[in-house]
Amino acid sequence: MGELVFIGLGLFDERDLSWRALDEAHACDVLFAEFYTSALRGTTVERLAGRIGKPIAVLHREDVESGVVFLREAATKRVGFLVPGDPMMATTHVDLRLRAEAAGIRTRIVHGSSIFTAAIGTLGLQAYKFGRTTTIPIPERGFRPTSPLDAIRANRAQGLHTLVLLDLREDGRFLSANEAIRYLLDLGGDTFPPETLVCAVGGAGSPNPVVRADRAARLVDADLGPPLHCLVVPGALHYMERAALLRLAGAPADALPPA
Amino acid sequence: MGELVFIGLGLFDERDLSWRALDEAHACDVLFAEFYTSALRGTTVERLAGRIGKPIAVLHREDVESGVVFLREAATKRVGFLVPGDPMMATTHVDLRLRAEAAGIRTRIVHGSSIFTAAIGTLGLQAYKFGRTTTIPIPERGFRPTSPLDAIRANRAQGLHTLVLLDLREDGRFLSANEAIRYLLDLGGDTFPPETLVCAVGGAGSPNPVVRADRAARLVDADLGPPLHCLVVPGALHYMERAALLRLAGAPADALPPA
Repeated sequence: MGELVFIGLGLFDERDLSWRALDEAHACDVLFAEFYTSALRGTTVERLAGRIGKPIAVLHREDVESGVVFLREAATKRVGFLVPGDPMMATTHVDLRLRAEAAGIRTRIVHGSSIFTAAIGTLGLQAYKFGRTTTIPIPERGFRPTSPLDAIRANRAQGLHTLVLLDLREDGRFLSANEAIRYLLDLGGDTFPPETLVCAVGGAGSPNPVVRADRAARLVDADLGPPLHCLVVPGALHYMERAALLRLAGAPADALPPA
Repeated sequence: MGELVFIGLGLFDERDLSWRALDEAHACDVLFAEFYTSALRGTTVERLAGRIGKPIAVLHREDVESGVVFLREAATKRVGFLVPGDPMMATTHVDLRLRAEAAGIRTRIVHGSSIFTAAIGTLGLQAYKFGRTTTIPIPERGFRPTSPLDAIRANRAQGLHTLVLLDLREDGRFLSANEAIRYLLDLGGDTFPPETLVCAVGGAGSPNPVVRADRAARLVDADLGPPLHCLVVPGALHYMERAALLRLAGAPADALPPA
């Protein structure tokens, strides 16, 4: 009987795999990976395969979504599916897991570090003060949903922060924090005026993450280092969060609301 | 010049450390650890020290909070601070980091896997449908705050799920999911009646996590395996989340709201 093991790769490069992830991946008969829900910017598939000691077949979005190759291979083999971050943060992973279980294939998860907590911790903000997370898509053909602003508005009404993840594409395109701030400024009106305090994290999990907090009007043009980026739009700040943004994120005092 | 490196240990045992975490810990002059904000249930300090190849001094809460030993050692040495999960999810870590930076000590974070994403993924729920996280304390001397119910109510009003973390103590005591459900039932009134759908995760990140979803009145007496536990109180369920709770968490159909 086969098995499908979802293995989290963590944030940045092949050194972010846990020992458990390496052992589990090495023990698989077949390894697949996807890099379209997120990406490891600090390594290559070849280096990852070298570290694990097994070849890795990278799948396109349509192959992951159809699930055919997984269900066929995992019917008789132990299949490892390597995904950036912590598995199951993308709906498509859950969908695949459910289809495998429905086909009688056992599934397991090996966890990895994730931007969901890394962004919060890198900024020194408090995890229990975050409301729901939102994502800004890469705008195309006039598709510019207001859902990110809706999330920011609803969270802020409760004094909560919003983690804003930024879309990326299989072809290597990604939305930068600068583009994302521009998106919010263009659509934002009263919800996101130019003086809005925004935090940006670039290269979370890398040896030199870029961490900034400033008014949107200033951060929109700032150099936030190589991708991937994400944003946090703060709600009410605890005094320790204020101190963290001043010290860790280089926030100018005039960008913060009065204490 | 010294340095203070916060190193995430991940969820369960010494195999959850990333290669980066092992390298970074090994490169430190001095290693401290704390196990009161969370715990690694699958290992011991000795095994952890053996894997890293360096001795580890476990600090009590008061030593972490005072910060004296860190600031003294990190003034001249590279100090590693090993913490369960992903660092900085506990306010006390942020406080320590800020004091180190204020003293001119460079700080860095090495990320680890965290219950914040592991609980969500293990249940097959969708990360962007979670509102703010709350914690249930170990009740004592009549201290039974209603803040967990306030969070559940506010999240549910927006259709959002609530991750409920459970307190633990330095002496090894921990709040079980059963006790936590009892806590919510006792205080809950209309917000948390006995038929409330609750999800419980035990041993997240271990080889055999226990994953259950059922009415509170039934789950309160269920065997949820060895600690640590946490809860999720769902808001509105997407059809794929319904399917996940039925298949992955063994939810009886009568425990779920009508589709």
